[in-house]
Amino acid sequence: MTPDALKALLLELRLTREAELATKFDRSLPFADGLFDRWERAKRLGFEAEVSIYDSACVFGDVRVGTKTWIGPYVMLDGSGGGISIGATCSISAGVHIYTHDTVLWALSGGKLPPRVGAVAVGNRVHLGSQSVIARGVTIGDMTVVAANSFVRDDVPPRTIVGGVPAMPIGHVEGEDAAVRLVFGQKPQPLS
Amino acid sequence: MTPDALKALLLELRLTREAELATKFDRSLPFADGLFDRWERAKRLGFEAEVSIYDSACVFGDVRVGTKTWIGPYVMLDGSGGGISIGATCSISAGVHIYTHDTVLWALSGGKLPPRVGAVAVGNRVHLGSQSVIARGVTIGDMTVVAANSFVRDDVPPRTIVGGVPAMPIGHVEGEDAAVRLVFGQKPQPLS
Amino acid sequence: MTPDALKALLLELRLTREAELATKFDRSLPFADGLFDRWERAKRLGFEAEVSIYDSACVFGDVRVGTKTWIGPYVMLDGSGGGISIGATCSISAGVHIYTHDTVLWALSGGKLPPRVGAVAVGNRVHLGSQSVIARGVTIGDMTVVAANSFVRDDVPPRTIVGGVPAMPIGHVEGEDAAVRLVFGQKPQPLS
Repeated sequence: MTPDALKALLLELRLTREAELATKFDRSLPFADGLFDRWERAKRLGFEAEVSIYDSACVFGDVRVGTKTWIGPYVMLDGSGGGISIGATCSISAGVHIYTHDTVLWALSGGKLPPRVGAVAVGNRVHLGSQSVIARGVTIGDMTVVAANSFVRDDVPPRTIVGGVPAMPIGHVEGEDAAVRLVFGQKPQPLS
Repeated sequence: MTPDALKALLLELRLTREAELATKFDRSLPFADGLFDRWERAKRLGFEAEVSIYDSACVFGDVRVGTKTWIGPYVMLDGSGGGISIGATCSISAGVHIYTHDTVLWALSGGKLPPRVGAVAVGNRVHLGSQSVIARGVTIGDMTVVAANSFVRDDVPPRTIVGGVPAMPIGHVEGEDAAVRLVFGQKPQPLS
Repeated sequence: MTPDALKALLLELRLTREAELATKFDRSLPFADGLFDRWERAKRLGFEAEVSIYDSACVFGDVRVGTKTWIGPYVMLDGSGGGISIGATCSISAGVHIYTHDTVLWALSGGKLPPRVGAVAVGNRVHLGSQSVIARGVTIGDMTVVAANSFVRDDVPPRTIVGGVPAMPIGHVEGEDAAVRLVFGQKPQPLS
């Protein structure tokens, strides 16, 4: 087969798959996200039952994910520097990045210093908003919320709502199960 | 064909396509973004004339887009929770995410509460800066600007410039057509 | 070959490649990032020795990159409006966007005004944090740090740590090579 013939066949596959996804799921996905099953990928990664992870997500090193957690497209789960554990029924929204290493001192030293590392733990029932970034070494408690586009560099206590760059507490979570509710209005204060 | 033969052929196609894009458009794109026509995809999605959308963008549910609007790579248009309407001549910059649902209460309740939903409307002549996130239920007026990496959770009145996490007004837009201009200097104030 | 046969073969290739990457590098990558060599791509783009760039990164126009600089997935290097030069041993973290043009006035004027342009220079030993955005026309000095999710719209002097939307100085860098260290604690002040 020539490269041109492969290109034509890939386009035909894209159109076929696009039509299927439009009919069945009312969506249009990037080529590879539309092609490969995201529940099957989660199983191959050893994640627990009913977890799904899009093709466009990256997974490095030791990453464990609890049941029913949803992992979106463009997500980075970097467990290379100590491991990431994520609990059950979490939203790891599209574009979330979780790191267990950083190369700040590596870059500043011209490659003379190693990366800094630290494990990350995310509790149960946690919502990480779209494109938020979680820094190495951070622990995020159960039933917390991180606003979209936040940068979390400090531990987040359970039932806390944080937001901003850097993320600071902006509210808390009351109640349980179907009676859970968000309480906002707190003046942002540094976490550490 | 063996998987290894397919891999070799895909690499040959990547190199061929890369050379074409370098010569014709002075660019090097991700594999699928470089392979599939972005104006054709916009037509298949029912968007209006002269709209383009990269392969790496996701589109869910009911999304309408007006003429000449540009939609970049890594974009998320989630119209699954009520529909997104975007006007004409907008910049939906690379990495912009627009949502009509969120899973905050779903996660906090351990899956007992449904997603919260709300339609999003983006006016005409709007610039959404790179990697900005627009929350469910938000209306963004005509001739507005959202700074890069902002998180917009409140309505944005016409001719307003907003920025930050959460986004607050930082200026306004004066004039019309080629005489349009940005006026900065306003102290940030909450939108609601 | 039918589209369905190609789909089956692509899945077989994905699984084969995934198993190889898991064994050799303890990682699971998006389809195309896992398929194509990122050091080879950097060479084809004319970047200097020991540079790597993921398949999912976009490169437009004139972009030069110095030795040992690491360029992650989902990165946007838009040199279409005046060129980007990046020094040696930099971290261009996952999801970083560097622009040399913006379409703010293009959108607001309904397409009557052209993009605004400006070259970007990034020095040596610079760390750009994940998903940070660098605006057109910005110069970023040697040995600087940009926090994750920041939006940099002003020049950054050498040895400065900046963060936020917009990014403001939050510290500085002392020492050299393996004795380099971060000094935080500064109250954020506008850069201009």
